[in-house]
Amino acid sequence: MFFDPLEGLARQDLENLQGVRLRHVVSQSANSPLYARIFEEHGLQADQVQGLDDLPRLPFTGKEDLRASYPGGMLCRPMEEMVRLHASSGTTGAATVVFHTANDIQTWADLVARCFHMVGVRPHDVFQNMSGYGLFTGGLGIHYGAERLGCLTIPAGAGNSKRQIKLLRDFRVTVIHIIPSYALHLATVFDSLGVNLEDLHLKTALIGAEPHSEQIRKRIEELYGVKAYNSYGLSEMNGPGVAFECPEQNGMHIWEDAFLAEIIDPVTLEPVPEGEVGELVLTTLTREGMPILRYRTRDLTRFIPGECPCGRTHRRIDRILGRSDDMIIIKGVNIFPMQVERVLMAIPEVGQNYLIVLERQGYLDQFKVQVEVKSEFFVEDMRVLKKLQDRITGMLRDELLITPKVELVEARSLPCSDGKAQRVCDLRGQ
Amino acid sequence: MFFDPLEGLARQDLENLQGVRLRHVVSQSANSPLYARIFEEHGLQADQVQGLDDLPRLPFTGKEDLRASYPGGMLCRPMEEMVRLHASSGTTGAATVVFHTANDIQTWADLVARCFHMVGVRPHDVFQNMSGYGLFTGGLGIHYGAERLGCLTIPAGAGNSKRQIKLLRDFRVTVIHIIPSYALHLATVFDSLGVNLEDLHLKTALIGAEPHSEQIRKRIEELYGVKAYNSYGLSEMNGPGVAFECPEQNGMHIWEDAFLAEIIDPVTLEPVPEGEVGELVLTTLTREGMPILRYRTRDLTRFIPGECPCGRTHRRIDRILGRSDDMIIIKGVNIFPMQVERVLMAIPEVGQNYLIVLERQGYLDQFKVQVEVKSEFFVEDMRVLKKLQDRITGMLRDELLITPKVELVEARSLPCSDGKAQRVCDLRGQ
Repeated sequence: MFFDPLEGLARQDLENLQGVRLRHVVSQSANSPLYARIFEEHGLQADQVQGLDDLPRLPFTGKEDLRASYPGGMLCRPMEEMVRLHASSGTTGAATVVFHTANDIQTWADLVARCFHMVGVRPHDVFQNMSGYGLFTGGLGIHYGAERLGCLTIPAGAGNSKRQIKLLRDFRVTVIHIIPSYALHLATVFDSLGVNLEDLHLKTALIGAEPHSEQIRKRIEELYGVKAYNSYGLSEMNGPGVAFECPEQNGMHIWEDAFLAEIIDPVTLEPVPEGEVGELVLTTLTREGMPILRYRTRDLTRFIPGECPCGRTHRRIDRILGRSDDMIIIKGVNIFPMQVERVLMAIPEVGQNYLIVLERQGYLDQFKVQVEVKSEFFVEDMRVLKKLQDRITGMLRDELLITPKVELVEARSLPCSDGKAQRVCDLRGQ
Repeated sequence: MFFDPLEGLARQDLENLQGVRLRHVVSQSANSPLYARIFEEHGLQADQVQGLDDLPRLPFTGKEDLRASYPGGMLCRPMEEMVRLHASSGTTGAATVVFHTANDIQTWADLVARCFHMVGVRPHDVFQNMSGYGLFTGGLGIHYGAERLGCLTIPAGAGNSKRQIKLLRDFRVTVIHIIPSYALHLATVFDSLGVNLEDLHLKTALIGAEPHSEQIRKRIEELYGVKAYNSYGLSEMNGPGVAFECPEQNGMHIWEDAFLAEIIDPVTLEPVPEGEVGELVLTTLTREGMPILRYRTRDLTRFIPGECPCGRTHRRIDRILGRSDDMIIIKGVNIFPMQVERVLMAIPEVGQNYLIVLERQGYLDQFKVQVEVKSEFFVEDMRVLKKLQDRITGMLRDELLITPKVELVEARSLPCSDGKAQRVCDLRGQ
């Protein structure tokens, strides 16, 4: 049933395994120049970490640590044992690099194969990988996983839409890996080539490498006639294969035998209560060459409470809700713009746009949300609008735990950006 | 000493192995729709091919057969057993595709690893692959070979010269795989970044994917302070890993345990005498998924006679001298422009350009070569020029077996193209 029996390991056994692996990885990481220094600075001995209970003793690792230890300061084994180097795209500042041993490559491929298998991909499937190959982890990481599973793998790489579609059709591709925004673009090319869904044999799309909403998933499922599954990874934690949706499509199982996951308040650095949103922190439990302890991903998510009907015991994280750098603190409460968006976009009367406005009234911060209402709901009858306003206020309060001031505005009345939308207007400093 | 003991197998044993493998591959290929049809058309039974002596019974396979059997007509095993698809760039006509089983991928990686090892690359080396990844075989083919050997592999991919150089320097890269023309370009970027050869740790360049001259190799060796080794492959025969230079740098050993090589006259289709130039024809001896029999590569080369001092028993082919499509037939003799170029470029007095002119005088074809002479050698004294002219004529006659008419012209007097040089002017039809 499972690709790896570990997927269904009883919770207590899984945590025991994590404890053993944590102890091992901490002792190994002490061999790297970076952690040797950090441990010394914190007066920490590796053998003080004996299990999960000792996790809080460990300092966090940040992207700045990876940059400062460039190029090889985080290796805890000799460079000769490394067989692969990958790098982040490095759009902000210097690139960060991750080294892998032969075992690391194998473990990574196993994790990705587990993801594929979980959503029904099998060796007889024909798989087209539309991620760019090279230093970027989405190409080779996914490729090795598909190969580990035994699919016929077409290493199409990124771009060249006409060729992508020709390959899809000519080789009766059943599974694709594609970036969500590219999936939306590629579908527009179908028509120009006279290709219909009926000409294709697609059944599954694996979508990842950029955060996207449930609406985008639904749209991809309709456009391609597939089930689309969300994928989560980051190059510091190998790349793809960290967390992946199961057929329930309700959160991504994070492979907890390989990654120790915490969700913390990005300000207090304390764990948030179970089910609340915070910053995902990950520790590699199996990586040999370059283990990373308590890595602050800056990605915001929450653990989805409860057991998954699929039977896997590994906890689920919600789709990425934003970056912790975007966090707003108001009246001592942490708020993420994505939380607001999630509430608003689930309300049928709400239009395309909204704006969060932060003001100071006297000594008090004021949290205001301007919400566009679709024209067909923006009626003359003030009582109807008042009711809608109250409903939105209540829903936001339930999510945010503070009561916002909600203003309803006409459709297309808020400033609209061509590029990345400006969702927060902070007037408190003025 | 050798990566694989097969590299030094006694000649007779190697040929016995080829015979056994040929018999097997012919019986297997009969399972593919294409060869089933071809065998029937030729009234051939697979079991009529018992060994190397029966090779002439087999028909040739051409690129047109690959195209006609697209997408899967050359598979001799079920599609489910295939794990990889690669495609030629398809610059001329439709793309041709090649499928591989898991064993094929492994065998291919072994062959590439053998090439790397032959020129001294070892697991402790840091290897940067500057070939594009994806459907093109130069990226993943070379990547898997380096990984098989155990090098630290940096999958840099093509382009992005500044990043290439940063990686070379920061990770103390010792071995690169690079296309010759890109190598020349990349070197020009060094200066602009203030990078010197002394900042780098390079010792070996593997150059391939486009034909190049000995002069280009020398230039790359000087620019990078490395030994540069020529690589030969084509996607129909996996890609890289078909033939590769040994440290002697005198021809490329073709891995004859995996590829059965012939050199034929492209017109008569008969074997050329040992050591003479003709078209390389290859038969896959180990490929499971999609064997190809007597594939006409269109690449012109010759077997280099004699044994190689390196001790490997696999025959050497010369660097690719051109394409058989470029062949000129004059007075019943086959001539390839590259033969002319090779002779001329070895003469110090000869300048950058030359032109082959084919004329008809009465009923006789006339083969004329116009040769630019460097200005310092283009002297007033006609006796000196006459001597040079005679010397060039003699050297061309020795190579071509016909006596050309040689005209010496001033440097920069021949038409010069921005793109691919026009080397042949055929006036016979006018």
